[in-house]
This record gives sequence, structure tokens and C-alpha cells, in this order.
Amino acid sequence: MRPSGRQANQLREVSITRQFTKHAEGSVLISFGDTQVICTATVEENVPSFLKGKGQGWVTAEYGMLPRSTNSRMKREAASGKQSGRTQEIQRLIGRSLRAVIDLVALGERQVIVDCDVIQADGGTRTASITGAFVAVHDALSQLVSKGQLASLPLKDHVAAISVGVADGKPVLDLDYVEDSACDTDMNVVMTGSGKFVEIQGTAEGEAFSREEMNELLDLAGAGIAELIQKQKAALGIA
Amino acid sequence: MRPSGRQANQLREVSITRQFTKHAEGSVLISFGDTQVICTATVEENVPSFLKGKGQGWVTAEYGMLPRSTNSRMKREAASGKQSGRTQEIQRLIGRSLRAVIDLVALGERQVIVDCDVIQADGGTRTASITGAFVAVHDALSQLVSKGQLASLPLKDHVAAISVGVADGKPVLDLDYVEDSACDTDMNVVMTGSGKFVEIQGTAEGEAFSREEMNELLDLAGAGIAELIQKQKAALGIA
Amino acid sequence: MRPSGRQANQLREVSITRQFTKHAEGSVLISFGDTQVICTATVEENVPSFLKGKGQGWVTAEYGMLPRSTNSRMKREAASGKQSGRTQEIQRLIGRSLRAVIDLVALGERQVIVDCDVIQADGGTRTASITGAFVAVHDALSQLVSKGQLASLPLKDHVAAISVGVADGKPVLDLDYVEDSACDTDMNVVMTGSGKFVEIQGTAEGEAFSREEMNELLDLAGAGIAELIQKQKAALGIA
Amino acid sequence: MRPSGRQANQLREVSITRQFTKHAEGSVLISFGDTQVICTATVEENVPSFLKGKGQGWVTAEYGMLPRSTNSRMKREAASGKQSGRTQEIQRLIGRSLRAVIDLVALGERQVIVDCDVIQADGGTRTASITGAFVAVHDALSQLVSKGQLASLPLKDHVAAISVGVADGKPVLDLDYVEDSACDTDMNVVMTGSGKFVEIQGTAEGEAFSREEMNELLDLAGAGIAELIQKQKAALGIA
Amino acid sequence: MRPSGRQANQLREVSITRQFTKHAEGSVLISFGDTQVICTATVEENVPSFLKGKGQGWVTAEYGMLPRSTNSRMKREAASGKQSGRTQEIQRLIGRSLRAVIDLVALGERQVIVDCDVIQADGGTRTASITGAFVAVHDALSQLVSKGQLASLPLKDHVAAISVGVADGKPVLDLDYVEDSACDTDMNVVMTGSGKFVEIQGTAEGEAFSREEMNELLDLAGAGIAELIQKQKAALGIA
Amino acid sequence: MRPSGRQANQLREVSITRQFTKHAEGSVLISFGDTQVICTATVEENVPSFLKGKGQGWVTAEYGMLPRSTNSRMKREAASGKQSGRTQEIQRLIGRSLRAVIDLVALGERQVIVDCDVIQADGGTRTASITGAFVAVHDALSQLVSKGQLASLPLKDHVAAISVGVADGKPVLDLDYVEDSACDTDMNVVMTGSGKFVEIQGTAEGEAFSREEMNELLDLAGAGIAELIQKQKAALGIA
Repeated sequence: MRPSGRQANQLREVSITRQFTKHAEGSVLISFGDTQVICTATVEENVPSFLKGKGQGWVTAEYGMLPRSTNSRMKREAASGKQSGRTQEIQRLIGRSLRAVIDLVALGERQVIVDCDVIQADGGTRTASITGAFVAVHDALSQLVSKGQLASLPLKDHVAAISVGVADGKPVLDLDYVEDSACDTDMNVVMTGSGKFVEIQGTAEGEAFSREEMNELLDLAGAGIAELIQKQKAALGIA
Repeated sequence: MRPSGRQANQLREVSITRQFTKHAEGSVLISFGDTQVICTATVEENVPSFLKGKGQGWVTAEYGMLPRSTNSRMKREAASGKQSGRTQEIQRLIGRSLRAVIDLVALGERQVIVDCDVIQADGGTRTASITGAFVAVHDALSQLVSKGQLASLPLKDHVAAISVGVADGKPVLDLDYVEDSACDTDMNVVMTGSGKFVEIQGTAEGEAFSREEMNELLDLAGAGIAELIQKQKAALGIA
Repeated sequence: MRPSGRQANQLREVSITRQFTKHAEGSVLISFGDTQVICTATVEENVPSFLKGKGQGWVTAEYGMLPRSTNSRMKREAASGKQSGRTQEIQRLIGRSLRAVIDLVALGERQVIVDCDVIQADGGTRTASITGAFVAVHDALSQLVSKGQLASLPLKDHVAAISVGVADGKPVLDLDYVEDSACDTDMNVVMTGSGKFVEIQGTAEGEAFSREEMNELLDLAGAGIAELIQKQKAALGIA
Repeated sequence: MRPSGRQANQLREVSITRQFTKHAEGSVLISFGDTQVICTATVEENVPSFLKGKGQGWVTAEYGMLPRSTNSRMKREAASGKQSGRTQEIQRLIGRSLRAVIDLVALGERQVIVDCDVIQADGGTRTASITGAFVAVHDALSQLVSKGQLASLPLKDHVAAISVGVADGKPVLDLDYVEDSACDTDMNVVMTGSGKFVEIQGTAEGEAFSREEMNELLDLAGAGIAELIQKQKAALGIA
Repeated sequence: MRPSGRQANQLREVSITRQFTKHAEGSVLISFGDTQVICTATVEENVPSFLKGKGQGWVTAEYGMLPRSTNSRMKREAASGKQSGRTQEIQRLIGRSLRAVIDLVALGERQVIVDCDVIQADGGTRTASITGAFVAVHDALSQLVSKGQLASLPLKDHVAAISVGVADGKPVLDLDYVEDSACDTDMNVVMTGSGKFVEIQGTAEGEAFSREEMNELLDLAGAGIAELIQKQKAALGIA
Repeated sequence: MRPSGRQANQLREVSITRQFTKHAEGSVLISFGDTQVICTATVEENVPSFLKGKGQGWVTAEYGMLPRSTNSRMKREAASGKQSGRTQEIQRLIGRSLRAVIDLVALGERQVIVDCDVIQADGGTRTASITGAFVAVHDALSQLVSKGQLASLPLKDHVAAISVGVADGKPVLDLDYVEDSACDTDMNVVMTGSGKFVEIQGTAEGEAFSREEMNELLDLAGAGIAELIQKQKAALGIA
């Protein structure tokens, strides 16, 4: 029995609310259980300087946590004057994951900037961020299509992410904070709608893990991501 | 007629949601129309070093805006590596406003850290922050009382804030973004439940303003703040 | 009786020395009693990027204190690597105050950069800075006129500033450090030569203040600023 | 045929030189082909503050590249005033990898600080760093044993790392810079002497990769790491 | 003939004003011609951590230039967020020069912090700073003696500094800005009252200089410094 | 007898290895005894903005120490977020020394960036850096000549550097760390192949030094530098 009472292969309750705030081209509130992240997608008609004149667009992401999204208050990164290594790792991961399913040439010379801000954290903030960010980007790109700035959505596939881990010696899906703190192995998996891998990041600070454990974890992750992509489609009305 | 169709002395719709997130001792979502701010209050059993052993507590505040809380995306302060002068002004203002109604000696050697994070901005983010932060602090202090750590609430009064300004030549209450951008004079007023002033910050980048205009503005502000304090009491169930 | 022996409505001795240093287009040493500030005005034939091609100029200000301008040594901001929130508040206030009386379109596409550096502090450094900076700017602009770069002074009015406060329960003008540290209410008022308000910043960290107290404070401030503007005119030889 | 003429499952030439510099408790120059990294291990008789009094030690790592270790000169991070996100990711990875095989309780209340500085880069700097750092740490810990400060080596296993990737559609081992720049999938694998996984970081910025491709990559990595661990043992004279 | 009309071995007019500002234990305004520097000495009853419990004191210095002390405005270092390499070099030089003549053991466990702030620059700001700082330190130490905190002045000698250079092919003393900008060799010499060297920093960005030129420069410097030390003594009333 | 057993006028063993790393246009490993520095020279076809269109080139240098190049580990400057004053002094010195012998007009509108990274330190890192950097620059410029981008080497002379000091009351050449830590006077001398001075930096934190001592030190330095320049020529095959 998991601390939350869930089955080993059971996701937390997932909800995806579109148009959560009014200014952004795409704005989504996503919840994985008690983890809540606001994901916005901003379209800007320019590209970073390393892409000027290269005939393609760019997608990038920034990530942050409200100081009291966590159980004890974290320092505000704006006040300490820098983003932590963890924050940078996560925002780079979100950006790469989204770029894997976006046709940057079809996007044209513009960029999409994604902001993922965690307002309540209970484990899995990076996977919720990626899963919600895809929906926000989808909305922002749809707006470009409906305004006639793009002929069709420059998307190659869906992308979503989930964590898996070995807790109390057995593989489980979608770790919450209690499980995450206690588990030996923690793996974040990012996959497309067609079941291919975009990113795998597995870490064993405790006991190293075997090839067999990894296979079990990837099976769990694949099934969980398929569910998440169904939820993205339902939220987008394209199920 | 104001752009929003409101009367000169009319507040925007105000809503105050307590227990908005689960980790903080006090957590409030406050809206002044389309302006939405998450205000959390954290209690820590320590004081800043300049107060060690002085037999009193402290209340301080930090403020931030999500990058896409605004119409065009703002740079993330954590990424640029510093808080702007505007951010620092606002968070200092929030802290002073709260300290004016809290009995720091009765609070004991602990501090309350308030975080005001704007998730959607449409003018008046600092006044909404102060008004919501008071409720979050009230909840955090009430928890200390209910746990027996304080005998009674160390509060001397309520505190709330509102903006007033001269727009199109006439004084109006609670400016939204459209009015704020166009107005000559912008004044933020912070007052207590007993109708005394805690802070007044009036600025004329356009036309300087007369003593008469200021008197009219203060009349508007006083009435508006009385309304806001009623809403705080209703939210807290102490109306 | 005030600690300094002054009457409630009495300014400290004010002196204004023009051409204090030789390089700047305007250079003023202003004293409010023991508070001494060097105010320089620099003219640059460019504008900040947000004003490029907008057909107008800009006026901005920076503020600093020598480390030992104060009773105990302050950290040098250049060494700590950032300007404090207080410094930023003050320099923004100085800039806004000056812009309120300068015709930025008539100034043309150039900027005036004001530097206010406190060499000795005894309360009221920001009000002395504003009052002295106006004279420095006047000198810098006069030089543009005498060189034929401007047809006439792009000034709409004078501007000066003074502090008022409630000390020992009674309103007083132009607080020195001893009064400032002890007073309940501290208000900085910036006004034009025609007696209109440019900025009002009133703060009650101690006891909140009533509308009546505020009115008394504004009366004191108005009379004090009228005196200061006379002294500016005398210094400029336009009395 | 690979650009370097190597077989798909062939490592570059690996050399490990111990006692490379004289001050550090462990100092290793490791080469993976043209990639050369100096790895030093420093023992300090203290622990980070979050571990004070917890009865265990710590191992941490820092990583850097000499500005001209690369084909075109990189900015010196000390001059730009911050470490890039990539640098932080890599140094966190090195630290976690080492901690996975070190018995932190047996280490006692001391820390080992590893510095990996790339003097010449040709792909695979992070995997060479981990592989060389293990040898440097082994030397540093051996010194503690020979001085009688530890009864035995607090090591649970060996650890080494290698990159694998899909280049030109086929899985290859130990990518050099040319292959790394061109490949679709890049995976860094960290494993123990007993063939278990410590870290897996796979990324597809180009085409997403299938479960089958991943299995092939992991087979390649496993064999490569077994070879690297043999080379570590040979260098340490414990083969 | 030099641009200023001075003889090759002639100092600019030197003035030394003690008690220039009121808060510091020592406060001096020193002028070398148009170069004007405020030098203050602060006594603090503590030492830097590397000297805790070592039974000796410390003397350190910080240096800055007001933005408009120069002909065209320099960026304010507090605003750019760091001190330039030049600033750091100069403040380290001032500190070392003072420490060379102060008996740090006799000073006891306290530190003297010197601040040299240039309000008007015309070449030679570092040499004026050292020469003025000695007088400020002398005053601060005298105050410790007169308060009974020290039995006698912990000074081993006087110290002063001057620049020399090769301008238009001939050695000259005390370069002003015009000469400094044009000269081939620039040397700053710091000497004691007994004519010994504390620091020599000679630089040839243009033509390298010969041993003979150096000897001539040192002769000039020696005579100049003897004059400066007479002026220090006159200012201190110990001539 | 010196701690190292050397004669007063004896250099440590000097070795100069060219083509030490493969990417840089010039790459040298230089050793002065146990002090080892990697010096690379990078040619970029641009100039700093202050030289744009001035018809000349530029040479600049950066310096760093690996954290464990020293006996106890130094903080990594990239991690602390700034270069120390010492680092900045040294890199400015290296740059000036090289510029003194390079014909910047003949170099054309390009810049040479030198990186000196200390991998093992035992005193004299700045003098080894200058001496090795000259060889690296020579190689980089030779490559421009051999590629036909320059008609001839834009070099006016050789340049090398050595330290001298007064240890145990007698002048000695090329101080190692043990002597450097204990000596009263420490002087770094930079000279050309024709025996002229480029830089002299002498410091007495202990006892001030006399003119006679300085003359002896300069004699030692001159002879040492002549030897170093012979070694540069031998390494370059132009002896």
C-alpha cells in the first residue's frame, strides 16, 4: 500500500484548466494531486540572437516556485539573486521536451516562451510542468493559426511527462512528496503521443538499480504517459 | 464615465479566498477585479539578527509578479538576478503597512514573512497585496493562538489599501490598468480600521496636483478603505 | 522645544554653493544644517533606448552616501555589489520630482543625469538632494541655452522638497536625524514654485496619523518649500 | 564507419594518470581520446552546515572548462560572474554519482570536494570527469586509511560513466565532439562495478527514440563501463 | 615647459583640511591641484575573521570616485554592481601602504577602515588618497590615545605617495590628467618619512624605460615625498 | 642557503612546452619549478568596442587558478561569482606586459586573448604566466603570418618576468612559495629582450626597503630575465 492509498500504477488525480489567466496566449493550471502549476505560453515575434536569419523559431522555458509552495518556506530566487542549479536543470528540461515535438521551421521566426510557476508543490512539479506546458503551447499556437499567422499547427506530436520510482522496493508511478523523499530511485520520463522517449532522467542516490527495475519503471511510465496524453486531448477537446 | 463603467467612488469587485494553498500558515487569493494576488503568511520561530534578544518579533514582506501576469511578458526577476527598484519599493511598503497594526512585542520573538505574488495584473497590485496580506497574517496569527503559542491576537487594528487618482481631470477610486496608465496623479493610501493613515504615496509625473485635489482623493480613499475592511471582516467571519 | 532649539516651523540653515566641482555641467553643494549633498547634472546627447526616436528627452537620477557620511560606517554599496532598496527608492523619487517640472519635449533628444552624493548626513538627505539637484539642473540647462543648443530653458516651474513629521506629538518642519529617529510619522513633500504637489510620501511605522495631523503637516511643508524656492532663486541670482 | 574510424562499441583510448599535481589528496589526469580532464579530490575536516552533527560525511563536486579547452574560446565563467546551467547540471551529476558508491556514514564527519577541470574538450567531458574523479577520490580515501584516520575504504563499489548515442541511425559508444554535435539521441550512463545504474540521462532534441533503441544503447553502455572500471582498477593497481 | 607651467620637480599646490566631515574619527579633504579626495578613517572594535584572536589589529581601505568627478561621467559602481579592477587595485594599494607604517600589534584587536572618495579628479587620485589617508588615520589614532584606549600612537613612520613619469621624453613629478594621458611611463611611488620605499608601481604601456630613467624618476619621487611629508606634519601641527 | 638549496641568483628549473593543447592558436605549458601554468593565445577577428574603426588591434589577458592548484583548496571564482582583486590585478598586469612589445597597429583590427590558468602553484604564478604567455602569443602570431594574414610578426621585442625579494635580509631571485610567504619585500619585474623595464611592482608589507636594496633587486631581476628570454628563444627555436 502506498502512503496515498494508490495502486502502484495509479496516477494522482489530474486536472487541466485552460484560460486560467487572461493575458497569455496560452494559460493553463495543471494539478497532479496537490501539485499545482501555472503554465503560460507567450508568443514573441522575434528569435534569440543565435537564430537570427536562420529561418526557424524557438521554444524556451522558465520555471519557478512560489516561496511558500512548499512545506517550509524556500528563499525567493529573485531576492537571492540567482536561480538554483535545480531550477536551471528543470527549465532546460522543459524547453528540450517541448522542442522535441514542435516543428521549429514551421513555427517561423518567432519564439514561444513558456513559464511554469509552481503555486503548490507535492512532488512531480517538473512532470506536471511539461504536461501542462504542452497544453498552453497548443493554445498559443492555435491562436496563431486562427489569426492566420500560421497555416497549421507546427506540432509533430503530443508530449507529456511522469515520474516513476522504486519505493519500499517496488516500482510505483507518479511519486508524491512523501514517496519522493523516501525512495531509492527516482526517474523522470518524457514521452510523445506515439510512445517514444524524449527524455529519461533516472537517479539513484540510495541503492543503484538494476536493468530489470529500469524496465519495470519504463513500463509504468509508458502507461502513465498514455493516460496523461488522453487527458491533454480531453482538455483540448480533441480526444 | 470611467473606462470600466464604474462610478468615481466605486471599487472593482473584490473577492478574498482563504486557505488558497495548503502549506502556508495563512494563504489568501485576493482579487480586485482582474488583479489577482496570492498572499501567504509564514511563521518562523526566529527573528532577523538586528532583533535578536530584543524581546519582540518582526513582520516582513516580499513581492513578485509572474512573468506573464502582465499584458506583455516581463522578465523573470530570478533570471535577471535582481529585483527591480519598483519591486523593492512595493515589498517595503507592504511590510511597513503590516507592522503598523501588529503589536511586535506581543508577537514575541518570531517573525511573519508575507509573500505577495501577482498571478494576474490589472492595476492596483500593491493595494490588493496589502489588503490580502492582512487576512493571511490574521489567519497565521490565529493559528498561533489556537495552538496556544499566543494568548491573543497581537493585532492593534485592521489595515487595507486602495489607489486613487485624477483621471480625465476628476478624482476616481481604485484605478485599473487603463486608468492608471493615463492618469496624471496616482496615490496609494493605506489606512487602519479606525480611519487613520499608515502610508500615503502620491505621485504626479504629469501635472502637479493641488491641495484641493488631494483632499478629494483622500475622501475617496477613506470611503474605499472602509469598504475593504468590511470585506476583510466578512472573509474572516468577524463582520 | 525641539532638540535643535528650532521652532516647529523653522528650517535648518540652508546653503547652496554653485560650481562646487569643475567637470559637471551643473555642480551644487547643498546643506540643510549638517546634511551636505553634492548634486551634479550631466548632459548627454543621447536618450535611453525606450525613448529613441520619440522626440523627447529624459531626466534621471542616481543617489549614494559616502560610507562615513553617517554616524556609524555604512557598507559601501559598490563593494556589496548592489544598491539597497532605500537607495533605489530615493533615486527614483529624485528623478520623478525633476521630470515633473521639466518640459521633456522642449529638452530635445538628450538626457540629464543627476548624481546626488551625500558627504555628510543628518536627516533629510533626499529632500536636500531634490532641492539642490534642481539648481544643478538649472545650471546645466542654462549652459545649453548659452551655447545655443536650446532657445530657452525647458523648465515649467521650480521644484523643492522638505520633510515634516510628528515628533513628541506635535508637527515639525525639516527633521534632523535625532528627530527623524524618534518621530512617529515622517512625511516627505515635494512641491513646485506654484505650490502644487509633485510627491507626497508619508509613513507611520509607529502610531497611525489622523487627517487633521496630515493637514497640519502639509501646511508646514508648504511654507517651508516656499522658503526653499526663495533660496534657490537667490542662489541662481533670479530672486 | 564512424568519423573516428572506431567500431560502434569501441571506446576512445583511455589513459589515467595519478598524482598529476602535487597538492591535492587525490589528483588524476584522465583522457578519453582528446578529452582531457584534471580531477582532484580534497579532504576537509568539516561538513556542510545541513549535515553538522548528523554523524556522516559528504561528497560534492565542481566542474569547469578552461576557456580555450574548446574549439572556439568560451567565456570564462569567473569573469561572467556565474556558472552556466550546463555547468551546474554537470557538477551536480558528478557529485550524485560519487555519493552513490561512497558510504557517507563510514566516511565520518568530513567532506571530499572533487574538482573536475577540463583542459581539452572533444566530447564526453562529464563521463571522463566521473570516471577520473572516482580514482582521485579512491586515492584521497586511501590516504586517510594509511594515516589511520579511517579503518578501511568507505567505498561500496566502483563507479564510471560513458556516453552512448544514436548517430546516423545506429547506436554507438563514447561519442566524440563530431558525433555528439550531429547525433539525434545522446545518453549519459553512470554505472557501478556490479553493473547497476546510478544515473541515466537520455535526451532527444532531434527524433524521439524507441524502447528498442534504448535497450541497444544500454547494452553498449554496460559493456563500455565494464571496460572503464577495468582501467580504473589497473590504474589503481587493484586489477 | 609642462602643460601646467610647472617645473619638472614641482608638485601641484597641496592642501590638507582636517575635520572635513563630522562623523568620522578622522576626516580629511586633500587636494593635489584640482584633484580632491575625501579621506575618512573609521575605528571599529573588531577585526576581520582571519585575525580573530591573533592579538593584532588591521587597517584596510576602500576607494571610489563620484560619477562626475571626471570629465565625462563614469558609471556609478554601486549601480553596475561591481568595483572595477582599477578600483580594487587602488584600494588594495592604499591599504598596504598604510599597514607598512602602522604597528598592528600595538593597535590591538581593532581595525581602521579608510574610505577615499574622489570628488574631483585631475590625475594622481591614488597618491593623494594615500597622502591624505595617513593624516586621517593619524587623527583617528590620536583620538584613541586621548580617550585612553591606546597608550601611544601605534605609528612607525609617516607615509606619503606621489606619481612620476616620463612625459615628452623627460622625467616629471606629480602628473596631472593631461600629462598622465600622454606620458609613456607612469610610476607611483610610496615612501616613508625616513625615505624608504613601501611600494613602487611603474608601468610602460608605450615605450619601455631604461634603468637610468628609473633612477631619475626615483630621485624626483623621493624629493616630492619629502615635501608631502612636511605638509602632513604642518597640517597635523607636528612640523 | 635558501630553503630550496638554490643560490641567491639562481632560477628554478624552467620548462616551456608548446602545443600543449590542441584547439588554441598558441598553447604553452610553462613551469617555474613546481609552478605550472597553461597559457593559451586565441586570435579573434574583432576588437573591443572602444577600438572599433581605430585601425589597430588589442591584446588582453585573463588569469585563473584551479581550486586545488594550491596547498589548501581555494574557492572556485566561477562559483563565488566574482574574480578577486588579486586575480584582476594579475590579469591586467599580463595584458599590459604583452601590449608593451606588440605593435598593435601592425596587428590590425583583431585581438589576441591570452588565458593563463595555473594548474599547480608554488610562488611566481604571475611571472611564469607572462613568460609563457609571450611564447603562446608568438605561436599564435606566427600562425597568422604562415596563413598570410600578416606579412610579418607584429612584435617589437621579447618580454619576460621574474620575482625578486629580500628574504632573511638578503636579495634573492625567483621566490618560491616558502620564500614568498616569509619575505619582507616582494618585487615583480617585467623586462624586454633589450633590458628595458615594462613593469615594476615592489611591495613592502613588512619592513620598507632602501634604494640600495632596490638596486640589488633590479640587478638580480635583469640577469634572471635575460636567462628566461634565452629559454623562450630556445623553445621557439630562434635561439
